[in-house]
Amino acid sequence: MTIWNVEQAIALTRAEEDQNIARLGDFVRIESVSMDPAKAPQVMQASQWLAKELGRIGFNNIRIHETDGHPIVTADWMQAEQGAPTVLIYGHVDVQPVEPVADWTVAPFDITMRDERLYGRGSTDDKGQVLMHLIALDALMRTGGGKLPCNVKLVVDAEEEIGSPSLLGWMKANPELVQADFAIVSDSPMYDYNVPSIGTSLRGIVNLEVRLRSAGGDVHAGQFGGAIPNAARSLARILVSLHDEDGRVAVPGFYEGVPDISAEEREGYEKLPFEEKAWLASIGATGTEGEAGFSTLERTWIRPTLEINGLFSGHTAEGTKAIVPATATAKISCRMVAGQNPEAIQKKVARHIVSLAPANVLCEVRELSIVPPAAIDHRMPAVQLAVDSLRAAFGTDVFLVRDGGAIPAVAHLKDHFAMDTLLMGFGCPDENKHGPDEWLALLHFRKGIEALLAYWPALAQSAGASTTTTEKTRISA
Amino acid sequence: MTIWNVEQAIALTRAEEDQNIARLGDFVRIESVSMDPAKAPQVMQASQWLAKELGRIGFNNIRIHETDGHPIVTADWMQAEQGAPTVLIYGHVDVQPVEPVADWTVAPFDITMRDERLYGRGSTDDKGQVLMHLIALDALMRTGGGKLPCNVKLVVDAEEEIGSPSLLGWMKANPELVQADFAIVSDSPMYDYNVPSIGTSLRGIVNLEVRLRSAGGDVHAGQFGGAIPNAARSLARILVSLHDEDGRVAVPGFYEGVPDISAEEREGYEKLPFEEKAWLASIGATGTEGEAGFSTLERTWIRPTLEINGLFSGHTAEGTKAIVPATATAKISCRMVAGQNPEAIQKKVARHIVSLAPANVLCEVRELSIVPPAAIDHRMPAVQLAVDSLRAAFGTDVFLVRDGGAIPAVAHLKDHFAMDTLLMGFGCPDENKHGPDEWLALLHFRKGIEALLAYWPALAQSAGASTTTTEKTRISA
Repeated sequence: MTIWNVEQAIALTRAEEDQNIARLGDFVRIESVSMDPAKAPQVMQASQWLAKELGRIGFNNIRIHETDGHPIVTADWMQAEQGAPTVLIYGHVDVQPVEPVADWTVAPFDITMRDERLYGRGSTDDKGQVLMHLIALDALMRTGGGKLPCNVKLVVDAEEEIGSPSLLGWMKANPELVQADFAIVSDSPMYDYNVPSIGTSLRGIVNLEVRLRSAGGDVHAGQFGGAIPNAARSLARILVSLHDEDGRVAVPGFYEGVPDISAEEREGYEKLPFEEKAWLASIGATGTEGEAGFSTLERTWIRPTLEINGLFSGHTAEGTKAIVPATATAKISCRMVAGQNPEAIQKKVARHIVSLAPANVLCEVRELSIVPPAAIDHRMPAVQLAVDSLRAAFGTDVFLVRDGGAIPAVAHLKDHFAMDTLLMGFGCPDENKHGPDEWLALLHFRKGIEALLAYWPALAQSAGASTTTTEKTRISA
Repeated sequence: MTIWNVEQAIALTRAEEDQNIARLGDFVRIESVSMDPAKAPQVMQASQWLAKELGRIGFNNIRIHETDGHPIVTADWMQAEQGAPTVLIYGHVDVQPVEPVADWTVAPFDITMRDERLYGRGSTDDKGQVLMHLIALDALMRTGGGKLPCNVKLVVDAEEEIGSPSLLGWMKANPELVQADFAIVSDSPMYDYNVPSIGTSLRGIVNLEVRLRSAGGDVHAGQFGGAIPNAARSLARILVSLHDEDGRVAVPGFYEGVPDISAEEREGYEKLPFEEKAWLASIGATGTEGEAGFSTLERTWIRPTLEINGLFSGHTAEGTKAIVPATATAKISCRMVAGQNPEAIQKKVARHIVSLAPANVLCEVRELSIVPPAAIDHRMPAVQLAVDSLRAAFGTDVFLVRDGGAIPAVAHLKDHFAMDTLLMGFGCPDENKHGPDEWLALLHFRKGIEALLAYWPALAQSAGASTTTTEKTRISA
């Protein structure tokens, strides 16, 4: 029976922190932008870099699976002691584009340390967090005689930033590489800087595109203006009708399936440290706006929403052009909460929009991609152990929080493999994910690794598979 | 006293029609797109081409005036017999861009004859119509012993398609090159194919741009969606509020100064041949929409309007992007009728839009260019003579009509030189002006020249300056 000396592993990762940051730099310098077809070779290169790291650490069955899109990397280590759980780690090596490059104050594809932050594209989303797992497992392996406390499978995507289009099909074709007792995903922010949290739900996404056509082409506003439908105005009228005066989405049946949140949970939200002014200031906004009767956290966590993501019609270049535009397009996305049927909601929104189209205007609604919502069973013991490990590493309270975002893999694991996911993210809410100057807090990088080092032995121990010498005082700090 | 033999001049232009069309081809092949700064040399080249033609015909004092923008060409012929009126011909050599080029079925910068139409950019707007004047004056000069029936000044703009920004300042600095008894502008469509008309008013234009900002930059729709203002939705709400349910513009004071149109004139509109279905079909529209209580002709001729010309916000590229857009822009133009104060209306619209901006959204309204409206004194004898000449050439009734469009020069001549303008256009309503496959009807090219050949001697004769041998039967056909 292996005795896991977590203190020794922590000391090792602290000693090697500079090397590990350098390793993150190597990873970030690979420009693996999945949205850019021209960068497909770099996406493959990032997958290969990861596979090589996994081999160095001692993982087995390392494979790079081809898909219709970018590759998926898998590996495992399945020699844990009897009774130890099997855990799937999911992450991704692809990143968002870096445009507008001029808005970065550091090199986008490199790691720059400034003010205790690690800046660079992918530093937090998700290369940095994937690497934190590898660093922790490597340290456990090296301080545990080449062994790990638990069986570990890895599935590392390279299409997460484009909605993981290949993932579900690949998972269904390779269930043996996916199935585990539960999954861990580190691809989200903590509740706040130095305030660790575990996510309990993710909102899904339903995308739609509305296209109106009122004439064969743009026409002269002098000759025809005032007498024919204006596609841009018709679109504005439709868009305005999608919410009522209380900020509720006015699509019939839109809130179907939204679970009642207990008064207890809602009261819990009120007790969370939340500085609305700072939250607004972080994005340069001056006030909130949303569904009446719900707080800001509730609006982003437990309520479905409908947002316009983009609009265009007629003359969009500099200067003036006296036309009545013949076409107008809106991009719309809805966030769904667990319990809702995204396909059904998508059809309802599409049908409703078509029903709002004014006379003499053609209205086409394209039903685009869907990411299902997901709720996690936060009563599972793995969650409580994670709370303990985070509390130990960060020395502060840990919150169970919901997340407004979406990760396709989490819904797929729940819906198709009955697997819950431990959402243990190490980012920060104002980390500029997807924007210029993306960053990961050095403190989170360090403490996150230490939480993971504590977590794996604790998980094995709770299953009766091994023991740990980690000082109890640290665990319960 | 010169005897003008109009029949001889007509025979000459008929005999030379192929050469004249070839000459139009030379003019159209010069890519004089005033909106494109890269094409400034071609705009200059078009002005030079015109100046050379004027010299060939026998005009005097030919000058190419530099401005802050594109040049203005002037010339005159002032040796008419005593008592002959002095007339200013205004036109322009610049053209609209040809994008999207793929939508053209002919070479945009060339003349292609198909189905009795002359296709090409500028064929009708305005190179073709400018050239028709030159062809008529050339034929009169050659059949009249090197003389013209009237004194003629020419002012040919190269910035009409960008709102003639240099014109008024240049006119004020050069009044002697402008002042005349009245002006003739051929830069508009006839009432219908083979249905000649004289314009009696032009609607002015007031341009504005609305920019909203709700955050420092686009933000993640999962993290913030549902809880902060969405700039695109805020814009849609403003735009929808600009009209009431009856299609009236809901800006306080918007209709100030709109003259009452006599019941007699409105009844006259009803008697005009107007096939609404064909009018709609010509632009691929299926129904009308506009201010309650007014017919389609009234909506485009005698009522001010407010149209959205363009919209953009957030993600406008292919695919989906789950953001809450931080900015949204609308381009708006209003049409004003003569009697209204465009500067005052612009301020009212701008102020009203700012007052509609929702909380926590910054709203900036830029007051852009203005083209004043213009009404013509259609009782002046020059108009009646034009009606006669058109009736003679086309052999059909001539209508006095209003025009929904705007020509800056016409308002400037009225407001600053007290000059009325004879709006004698030879285009067609469905001529694709500003769009792909712009065309001029060969019949209008031919008959328009013949109408001009009849017009000049008749004008001189009415002033007692000369006589004409034109058969009376043709004049009154």
